[in-house]
Amino acid sequence: MSSLFRHVALIGKHPASVAGSGGTPLTALEDMAQFLAAQGCAVSIERETASYAGVQGFECLDVAAIGEQCDLCLVVGGDGTMLGIGRQLARYNVPLIGVNQGRLGFITDVPLDQWREVLPPMLGGEYEEDRRRLMHARVMRDGACVFDALAMNDVVVNRGATSGMVELRVEVDGHFVANQRADGLIVASPTGSTAYALSAGGPILHPSNHGWVLVPIAPHTLSNRPIVLNDAGEVTIELVAGRDASANFDMQSLASLLHGDRVIVCRSQYQVRFLHPRGWSYFDTLRNKLHWYGGGT
Amino acid sequence: MSSLFRHVALIGKHPASVAGSGGTPLTALEDMAQFLAAQGCAVSIERETASYAGVQGFECLDVAAIGEQCDLCLVVGGDGTMLGIGRQLARYNVPLIGVNQGRLGFITDVPLDQWREVLPPMLGGEYEEDRRRLMHARVMRDGACVFDALAMNDVVVNRGATSGMVELRVEVDGHFVANQRADGLIVASPTGSTAYALSAGGPILHPSNHGWVLVPIAPHTLSNRPIVLNDAGEVTIELVAGRDASANFDMQSLASLLHGDRVIVCRSQYQVRFLHPRGWSYFDTLRNKLHWYGGGT
Amino acid sequence: MSSLFRHVALIGKHPASVAGSGGTPLTALEDMAQFLAAQGCAVSIERETASYAGVQGFECLDVAAIGEQCDLCLVVGGDGTMLGIGRQLARYNVPLIGVNQGRLGFITDVPLDQWREVLPPMLGGEYEEDRRRLMHARVMRDGACVFDALAMNDVVVNRGATSGMVELRVEVDGHFVANQRADGLIVASPTGSTAYALSAGGPILHPSNHGWVLVPIAPHTLSNRPIVLNDAGEVTIELVAGRDASANFDMQSLASLLHGDRVIVCRSQYQVRFLHPRGWSYFDTLRNKLHWYGGGT
Amino acid sequence: MSSLFRHVALIGKHPASVAGSGGTPLTALEDMAQFLAAQGCAVSIERETASYAGVQGFECLDVAAIGEQCDLCLVVGGDGTMLGIGRQLARYNVPLIGVNQGRLGFITDVPLDQWREVLPPMLGGEYEEDRRRLMHARVMRDGACVFDALAMNDVVVNRGATSGMVELRVEVDGHFVANQRADGLIVASPTGSTAYALSAGGPILHPSNHGWVLVPIAPHTLSNRPIVLNDAGEVTIELVAGRDASANFDMQSLASLLHGDRVIVCRSQYQVRFLHPRGWSYFDTLRNKLHWYGGGT
Repeated sequence: MSSLFRHVALIGKHPASVAGSGGTPLTALEDMAQFLAAQGCAVSIERETASYAGVQGFECLDVAAIGEQCDLCLVVGGDGTMLGIGRQLARYNVPLIGVNQGRLGFITDVPLDQWREVLPPMLGGEYEEDRRRLMHARVMRDGACVFDALAMNDVVVNRGATSGMVELRVEVDGHFVANQRADGLIVASPTGSTAYALSAGGPILHPSNHGWVLVPIAPHTLSNRPIVLNDAGEVTIELVAGRDASANFDMQSLASLLHGDRVIVCRSQYQVRFLHPRGWSYFDTLRNKLHWYGGGT
Repeated sequence: MSSLFRHVALIGKHPASVAGSGGTPLTALEDMAQFLAAQGCAVSIERETASYAGVQGFECLDVAAIGEQCDLCLVVGGDGTMLGIGRQLARYNVPLIGVNQGRLGFITDVPLDQWREVLPPMLGGEYEEDRRRLMHARVMRDGACVFDALAMNDVVVNRGATSGMVELRVEVDGHFVANQRADGLIVASPTGSTAYALSAGGPILHPSNHGWVLVPIAPHTLSNRPIVLNDAGEVTIELVAGRDASANFDMQSLASLLHGDRVIVCRSQYQVRFLHPRGWSYFDTLRNKLHWYGGGT
Repeated sequence: MSSLFRHVALIGKHPASVAGSGGTPLTALEDMAQFLAAQGCAVSIERETASYAGVQGFECLDVAAIGEQCDLCLVVGGDGTMLGIGRQLARYNVPLIGVNQGRLGFITDVPLDQWREVLPPMLGGEYEEDRRRLMHARVMRDGACVFDALAMNDVVVNRGATSGMVELRVEVDGHFVANQRADGLIVASPTGSTAYALSAGGPILHPSNHGWVLVPIAPHTLSNRPIVLNDAGEVTIELVAGRDASANFDMQSLASLLHGDRVIVCRSQYQVRFLHPRGWSYFDTLRNKLHWYGGGT
Repeated sequence: MSSLFRHVALIGKHPASVAGSGGTPLTALEDMAQFLAAQGCAVSIERETASYAGVQGFECLDVAAIGEQCDLCLVVGGDGTMLGIGRQLARYNVPLIGVNQGRLGFITDVPLDQWREVLPPMLGGEYEEDRRRLMHARVMRDGACVFDALAMNDVVVNRGATSGMVELRVEVDGHFVANQRADGLIVASPTGSTAYALSAGGPILHPSNHGWVLVPIAPHTLSNRPIVLNDAGEVTIELVAGRDASANFDMQSLASLLHGDRVIVCRSQYQVRFLHPRGWSYFDTLRNKLHWYGGGT
């Protein structure tokens, strides 16, 4: 058997989006499943994926069961799909490979039309492993936790649409940082540093940097610049003033924060493991995605 | 008679705010009124101001009547109060002087505790006149105007609190600029360039520059930089994608924009006239407010 | 005769650069000259251009004579060539068309391989005229002018390579702005706002905005943001501290500024006239050059 | 004996600067020396300091001897003095306390006029230790090292004063990042992140983050944003194009870099140990130095 991975799961982006892309990845899923089986792998399909894709003849598992039973997960979709699955599988330590049907993403780097060439060596152990740390975030109200989730990209506290800025009291490990008056505040992981935080003026954090970055959104005080912390610390953000503020952990939202609510962010005990083709470099991805100059003409 | 201004109106910040500042400007209003009368001026008090301040013995007028009858308006409050009154009085061409009871503002520069020294020469003609152009903004839906207002600071289209970015199609004078994917887009006047637009990364526009500046808020495309236009042009912002977006003209909001709604911004035919003490310089105000270095130690 | 322009001059980029581009625009110059003659135009070739291109059979003129005698100038090269010629021809009010042999520029927008289609309607009057204002800059030392030039893009005062920041005292129309401690300070025109000033964090100024923008380079005070002025004013920059500072007017440099030297920038009495193909829009150029999103996928 | 530190050295800022500040810290140095002796400490004075300050009756040592023999070093001066001494003492692992005669710095936080109250508890062990990592930087030319130094703040490669941008090929751990076309590139430590790198648009790195940040200065490509790396990696910056470029390690410069020269930055094996008064917080320093809002009015 040519695969180091005995039991491989396949998960696809949900059908509405797939249809929207105009392609036919449904057959691709089936092709991949048969290919993996031919390599001697046990193959399972995520239950919803199997249902919309109409793939038959393979075991169907929900995501939790995939986490418990499989030792590799192929995700067909974009960065958003990959992040969502990564968050769900984090506690199981299953590695993920992202197969991208459109423009390559920051973490999905096997092109759908090249999987037949790119996957086999990866299954044989020719890959680069890339571990990403997750944030664990909670909203505390009157001493109780009213919202609790993992985030791979970012934790954002922001203002309501028509309600002026919020004021946020920020502490790190119990040390007072400042009261931020702004549209909001982002706590981003290295993974999230190339997403919303970058738009708001934050730096890029290489995944090997063990940090979070605090990025204020449109801060009233011009010297309120992004701060890169060690990810071992605990960040507390308390809503001091402002109406209709919300907490957003990746895309998971708690609207209508109350004054005194505290959003607490610390490092999750879990990490996500992404596998990339041998020779992969984070900087190549950055340079391509951000259109940096590579010399020559 | 020592005042060039025959009929002077007094307007104060509404009482809740005044109380909040902990001072006693109520007596200041009465003192000013009596002082102006002693200079031979006809003195009117804005009706609400008179009511909460308990000033008696002077004619009460609403803001429109002040605009029609008076030839100077003294505003006691901060920049926000001044902008609101300025917007209401713009069509009447009445000049305004701002008396500030707290920290000096960008446009309110007579300190409350120095009005007895600062105002007399101004009444005698020793002042610097500073004209500010207003924006006229509308929201068009299905060919009809559903929202219409003047703005002194800015026109902002922005996203809902928990709903990801908006996509806005921007045109200037019928020329396509770009589709902005961002938290929102600000069109700011020189007056507004030191407010929200500055927090979002925009430049400062000197009031003598006849321009507006378009400032994207947290734009997805990093090269979407602020653009300074000639204010004679018409800016159109169409909501292409995004939920719960709103249009905000200074603090006046229209929530729940629909896809296809068009926010149209052009120069108002009106200007606001601010009078400053002789020797006033916009740059002095900037340097003080933004803590710029003035040399020395 | 199908050309509105009776006497047309041709100027090419200097040969070293042309060679560097690997193309053969030398024959293009001759082809254009013959084409213009066939349209009934008198055709002159700039003396140096004729020499390196080996074009014969046409009158040779130096740039000053072109300015005095011609009523249109075709420039084959990039934005840099165009700016240099524009600066030299500004006093003569001759319009310029830029033919670009490489990637299109901000102001050179006739592709070399399409001139046969694009130029004829322009010669017939189908063009957009785009006037750009020039800066006139001088360095004053001990009451005397020691350097004097026009600039189309920018006037830059900056520090020496190994010498820490400079301190620059800035005034506008005699009003003190601030002492800037920074790597340097840029005064950019709308034309220059998309060049160095953009890299240093400045906004884009539409050519219809009659302004200059002051952009500090790496300012010590974080609130020292770009300021957009009316171009009718006079900007004075005095070197207060710092070694090996220099003044740069477009690419024309005066090294070793002395403490007390004053760089004075005002609007030149001249404008440059660029002609673009009918339908040209500044925003299309911006969107293409800066890779802005135009909607769709 | 009330001091945990048996042998304490005193070092002062060099006399020109001291004179410039107009104070009389010379007597302060002598007072401190006598105070420390009274606490039972052996006291040494740095040789140059003793000479200009005219302090007699104490052993004089040069900096290397201080490093070998002392177990605490008091530095009277500003951040710049402290950084210079820190760099020299790094290999000896001697902790430093900074006594500041002017405005408090980022790392010098005992006010000169309060040392009698602040120092005693620190000598008794009531302090916060704050370790800062150093960069080791070299310039390689034709296989040989032509410049070699430690840096606490930053390593900067930048362009000559009148010579346009440089092009720098950047690699991290042998992985190609990009060719930077810019005024220059800064590699900053957490300590240096609040200095030049901040002016150039970089983020703040908390000292507990084990990273360096790459900050381009006025980059030609607008998406060339700061990148935060793990400090275990090796950064290589090769000069590809540009005249009169220089390498600057803190304030130590090598001018006239040649094309092909490679500046290599890695983590030094040494750290500097700063001691702060008990209760010190990095965030308090940031908030005070950068004028952040602390709530209230």
